[in-house]
Amino acid sequence: MIQRPRGTRDFLPDEMERRRHYESLLRETAQLYGFREVATPMFENTELFTTKSGPNIVDEIYSFQDKGGREISLRPELTAPVMRMFVNELSNAPRPLKLFYFGQCFRYERPQSGRYREFFQFGAEIIGAPTAETDAEAIALAEAMIKRLGLKNYVLRVGHIGILREKLSGLGVPQEGMAELLQKLDKKLYDEARSLMEAYDVSSEGINAVFEFTALSGGKDLLSRIEGEAGAYLRELFSILELYGVEAVQLDLGTVRGLDYYTGVVFEVEAPSLGAEKQVCGGGSYTLSELLGGESVFSTGFAIGFDRILLALEKEGANFSPQGLDAYVLATANETRPDSFRIVTMLRKAGLRADVDLMRRKLSKAMKQAAASRARYAVIVGARDLAENAGTVREMSSGEQRRVSLDELVSYLSA
Amino acid sequence: MIQRPRGTRDFLPDEMERRRHYESLLRETAQLYGFREVATPMFENTELFTTKSGPNIVDEIYSFQDKGGREISLRPELTAPVMRMFVNELSNAPRPLKLFYFGQCFRYERPQSGRYREFFQFGAEIIGAPTAETDAEAIALAEAMIKRLGLKNYVLRVGHIGILREKLSGLGVPQEGMAELLQKLDKKLYDEARSLMEAYDVSSEGINAVFEFTALSGGKDLLSRIEGEAGAYLRELFSILELYGVEAVQLDLGTVRGLDYYTGVVFEVEAPSLGAEKQVCGGGSYTLSELLGGESVFSTGFAIGFDRILLALEKEGANFSPQGLDAYVLATANETRPDSFRIVTMLRKAGLRADVDLMRRKLSKAMKQAAASRARYAVIVGARDLAENAGTVREMSSGEQRRVSLDELVSYLSA
Repeated sequence: MIQRPRGTRDFLPDEMERRRHYESLLRETAQLYGFREVATPMFENTELFTTKSGPNIVDEIYSFQDKGGREISLRPELTAPVMRMFVNELSNAPRPLKLFYFGQCFRYERPQSGRYREFFQFGAEIIGAPTAETDAEAIALAEAMIKRLGLKNYVLRVGHIGILREKLSGLGVPQEGMAELLQKLDKKLYDEARSLMEAYDVSSEGINAVFEFTALSGGKDLLSRIEGEAGAYLRELFSILELYGVEAVQLDLGTVRGLDYYTGVVFEVEAPSLGAEKQVCGGGSYTLSELLGGESVFSTGFAIGFDRILLALEKEGANFSPQGLDAYVLATANETRPDSFRIVTMLRKAGLRADVDLMRRKLSKAMKQAAASRARYAVIVGARDLAENAGTVREMSSGEQRRVSLDELVSYLSA
Repeated sequence: MIQRPRGTRDFLPDEMERRRHYESLLRETAQLYGFREVATPMFENTELFTTKSGPNIVDEIYSFQDKGGREISLRPELTAPVMRMFVNELSNAPRPLKLFYFGQCFRYERPQSGRYREFFQFGAEIIGAPTAETDAEAIALAEAMIKRLGLKNYVLRVGHIGILREKLSGLGVPQEGMAELLQKLDKKLYDEARSLMEAYDVSSEGINAVFEFTALSGGKDLLSRIEGEAGAYLRELFSILELYGVEAVQLDLGTVRGLDYYTGVVFEVEAPSLGAEKQVCGGGSYTLSELLGGESVFSTGFAIGFDRILLALEKEGANFSPQGLDAYVLATANETRPDSFRIVTMLRKAGLRADVDLMRRKLSKAMKQAAASRARYAVIVGARDLAENAGTVREMSSGEQRRVSLDELVSYLSA
């Protein structure tokens, strides 16, 4: 037997229906907020990802040469492709652009619970509106999506990476050392962060001030303690979030998101039920288009880890029942079989989900198949009924049967 | 600027909405017919595709080594992955399995009109029901989908590759030469087919009989001229197709589909408006699971070339209008801006597609943005209206304005 590649998944019918259901909830919510869907290719020129994330990214992604010798990579995330598309094709479109996308991404990493080599992201970007309401809109959409999925237990944390960058810069951390240090702080690896800062001759008072700052986390009452422009910006953001009805939001200046291109507000949503790998959504404002050859444009976006949030819903016991058939049509004998095809065709044309026995089974076996297909009704096609232009309809849940005229069958089954 | 890879596409909002619309029509139709969706990974072990199609397929697909040295390939089609999934995970499920799928496939070929390196297929398979009604069901679904999309001008042709294989075998064509010869016949390369047959010492009468046979094409009246089991099978199939309401179907024994694994009925749908590359759907019955390590199972399936059928719809002038916003909310001045966020949030929570000015624009500029977003209504939030708990609603198409109480805004905009 040929196996599927490691870290990938097949989605069988019940699971697929569940995923499509939740996917459509996300899509509908984004559309309610005035976002429009876009799609980019599964692979990009590798340069796109190294430009965004540095050359080391190649070690973690599926990158290869195509037959023309071009370096291409399966996309590890979707912000860079969407910004590439913006620079190439949408830079003259009216702003702000509010875009969303859903699709597979790929990382070559060790598969583990909730982490796959092929995984799914749902994301959104607002491009070209440099205001606090833009950040608020992105955060409001992220929360609305998570609520719409039905996740009950989640924590939404908002910070501002600009403040920390400025503080670190003021303490003598050079620009080229920033990304590494932010990554350590993001992962709360304080010993390693301390060593890095010591290497840049940051004083121990300075180091402690940094740690104190990133530990600043709690309710809106903390807002007054943040100085300068960033403090004013955050106060404005939080007041707009209130108008948006986003209430359960924490201020957390330790929300760092170790990515070099975030510039201002950053936010994360965690589902505590997931344990160590609990982040289900992350985003913030960034500048990326300049890096890709476009003009400098204020952008805010986020991505929801679709697989992980489905796992969180499962842990909360969220129920999803696949939709069964409306009717399963079966013949009592070979002589009435032709009519079973005629009848199932009539039902389908009327917009009913209907199936028919294709195996020439005896009635009892075909009835089992009807039950396995979760049909609401079985339509039994027998010679005596047919002589009176009727069929016998069995309600599968109760077992009740009654004769129904074929002329009334559609309306009977639709009721 | 970093470009997207050659032969791939970005889908911008209007085009994406059109594609999602047609995709959902295909999905709904498959579900009406009792098919259920599945999904497989974007890449597979290369062995899967060489097992199905021979080692030469590697020249035409994106195949590469992953970092663990495994040979993997981006999927060039979806039947083999779905059958791999069937063998691995569904071989004990109740039969028949009726599965459908939609997704990207990849081929490394010269990009040209309607042919991309990344393209989209919608397909369906019925696994495990070795009957003529199974073939009929697949053909009926294919036609129903094409009709549901709204394609007017198409040709549905049905043949039987078993008859031709038998005939060629009887004339002395060896098994190992069959695939190449069938490919030539499929492409109507008669000179090359003649040379091949001559090399196998087929008599010139034999060769002419083959050409005459593959030229047999027309209405159902030809059915009586086909001998043997296959003739009886085709007559049965056509009579079931009639019960399914599939009328516009041609018998065409030249429908060969040059793939080694087709065994019986084969069918194709062409859109003549597309010129040389006119095939929009192809399928047939096949045995593939044995090749992949499973038991021998009768299967019938087809795939619709999604990109090509959209092109055919475009050529027929099919119209699709993107859905605009229900409302665009804008403030007359900064003092009423906070209320614009409160109001847009109320509309979105009520299930209306609503957007709001994020750019702090003056009224006239914001109104232009409302028009660009194809909103049905603009909701203008001014101080005087607000004092009376109201807003001014402007119908964008007529320009008519009226004051509406905020308590009645949702029902007013929903009407």
